[in-house]
Amino acid sequence: MENTNLQDYSHKRFNILTGEWVLVSPHRAKRPWQGQNEEISTEKRPSYDESCYLCPTNTRINGEVNPDYKDVFIFTNDFAALQKDSPTFSVNDGLLRAESERGICKVICFSPDHSKSLAEMEVADIKKVVHAWQKEYTILGENEMINYVQIFENKGAVMGCSNPHPHGQIWSQSTLPNEVEKKDIQQRNYFKEKNSNLLEDYLNQEIEAKERVIFENDDFIVLTPFWAVWPFEVMIAPKKQQKNILALTDSGAKNYAEAISVITKAYDKLFNTSFPYSSGIHQAPTNGKNNDHWHWHMSFYPPLLRSATVKKFMVGYEMFGTPQRDITAEIAAKRLRDLL
Amino acid sequence: MENTNLQDYSHKRFNILTGEWVLVSPHRAKRPWQGQNEEISTEKRPSYDESCYLCPTNTRINGEVNPDYKDVFIFTNDFAALQKDSPTFSVNDGLLRAESERGICKVICFSPDHSKSLAEMEVADIKKVVHAWQKEYTILGENEMINYVQIFENKGAVMGCSNPHPHGQIWSQSTLPNEVEKKDIQQRNYFKEKNSNLLEDYLNQEIEAKERVIFENDDFIVLTPFWAVWPFEVMIAPKKQQKNILALTDSGAKNYAEAISVITKAYDKLFNTSFPYSSGIHQAPTNGKNNDHWHWHMSFYPPLLRSATVKKFMVGYEMFGTPQRDITAEIAAKRLRDLL
Ligand SMILES: O=P(O)(O)O[C@H]1O[C@H](CO)[C@@H](O)[C@H](O)[C@H]1O
Ligand SMILES: O=P(O)(O)O[C@H]1O[C@H](CO)[C@@H](O)[C@H](O)[C@H]1O
Repeated sequence: MENTNLQDYSHKRFNILTGEWVLVSPHRAKRPWQGQNEEISTEKRPSYDESCYLCPTNTRINGEVNPDYKDVFIFTNDFAALQKDSPTFSVNDGLLRAESERGICKVICFSPDHSKSLAEMEVADIKKVVHAWQKEYTILGENEMINYVQIFENKGAVMGCSNPHPHGQIWSQSTLPNEVEKKDIQQRNYFKEKNSNLLEDYLNQEIEAKERVIFENDDFIVLTPFWAVWPFEVMIAPKKQQKNILALTDSGAKNYAEAISVITKAYDKLFNTSFPYSSGIHQAPTNGKNNDHWHWHMSFYPPLLRSATVKKFMVGYEMFGTPQRDITAEIAAKRLRDLL
Repeated sequence: MENTNLQDYSHKRFNILTGEWVLVSPHRAKRPWQGQNEEISTEKRPSYDESCYLCPTNTRINGEVNPDYKDVFIFTNDFAALQKDSPTFSVNDGLLRAESERGICKVICFSPDHSKSLAEMEVADIKKVVHAWQKEYTILGENEMINYVQIFENKGAVMGCSNPHPHGQIWSQSTLPNEVEKKDIQQRNYFKEKNSNLLEDYLNQEIEAKERVIFENDDFIVLTPFWAVWPFEVMIAPKKQQKNILALTDSGAKNYAEAISVITKAYDKLFNTSFPYSSGIHQAPTNGKNNDHWHWHMSFYPPLLRSATVKKFMVGYEMFGTPQRDITAEIAAKRLRDLL
């Protein structure tokens, strides 16, 4: 491609998965920053913290005691946003429309070690997390009430994470969330039209172009998507189409764990800090429909822009208009690649 | 309506203007908060700050000197995300799609007084801001290159605002931003189908229902929309359809200024702090098309949830799924109404 205009002038890029745009202003990267700086905690955490409600053997707020777990530990969220036995109702009152929504929210501790993040865990231990995600996707997906399973992690205080113990969440529910619905439509339309898989075709193009690829192994590619919104946004995806994470072979799971390890380590090196982000896996709904148009992928949305304390604010224009970024996806990919 | 299920159980509500959903979990409002607290600045600002690049007579980073302005002052953004003479180009390379985007970005100082926010300004002075917005909408809208004018404000360090001097921004551009495109489609479809105006019909329903209305005067209504995302999100809209702010009469402009004054004052009282938010006006594109389906409105998206230091984080589930809120729109409206 090598279109130098993309590195010099403002333009918008199209997200093939959501059908939405991002505004890119490469010339703006030199803007001085006089605004809010984030705090960083440099304190080294202990492996066990007696005041942490996620550490093994500690008591949670509802009185339950965590087992003395040795790898992954999963429990139902004590303050779940979705509940499994709330009543079914709907409101259809003129222009007021609401639908009840049921679901199950779980918390997944990645490790008993309070001091570790995914970046500091062994690939073999991350692989155990992958297997736990598979198991939950299966169990929740088999539940009649559940049609979609959202696996995600909020890492770092700046991402609303209230406990540094390494953990993620799984919210599963009856209907498809907004973002999943958009990706479902885009992938389905492409599949119908081309009898081919949208994300697989895109990844092949990226493997050829190289400039946005950060890392590859036999099964996975790690790249900054052409339409990335967050400064150092990254996607991990299987090179060959798989509709959900259950399609992973054992070595596929290991290669996926390796990809997670590689990118989270690079992130921590970038600004020499435990890099905050939200990550999430988008995959086929568990609604019993034919979802062959789906190609699962994991995305990382990290807020930091220039240093451990200066983040990108998605505010005014971004909320009312279109997400906006300064540093291009190509430059971000190069910076991360150079850290491997 | 008075559907008590909406106050007790998780459900999703439909945003008629964007066609997207919000997840509401009223039972979750009691969740304890152990995460990040925001800093608040309680420092009383001087009326003039010699280090502020927005104060009258001071020199900006590019060497220009601000005039000794007496009310509103507008200039072109020194680090504009959009430029008016960047080249036109497009990329259509397989699944990579990009389009050049041109525009004009301006900064608008609401007052020469460094210490004031809209909440602390007189209604007559806010009315001058309204007239300045009208003037800019006209000038920019008449520009051949500009098809949409986004007026917005980021207030508070937590909203990425890098200077406490009261000011907003105006980004105008060739194409419609994502959020505007969505609202354009929803309003146009409704207008075609019903030969009636979506937002006006909705407002009439709210005036009748009362429970989400915070304030009314002859021309304007201030309410929490049924589908509000942010904890204390508010919309100001003219009761009778107007496609853009140029349709305001002189007393309409005064009543609009009053509505802004009332809600920003209530906000400051809510947590006894200078309340941060992003606000923005969505109105008809300036693309020369028939935009009679448009009904302009101003929205406030404030992040604070429980106190001056505890905000709502729109992270993991919200980024990958659907925006989620705990406190309902009805409760939020009541709390703000009780402060008037
Ligand atoms: O233009 P400012 O005030 O420097 O910057 C602020 O507003 C912009 C428009 O919403 C955002 O893109 C920036 O992230 C934010 O920090
Ligand atoms: O569930 P937690 O970790 O308490 O809460 C965090 O993640 C949730 C899911 O993304 C968000 O809704 C909350 O705003 C955030 O603080």
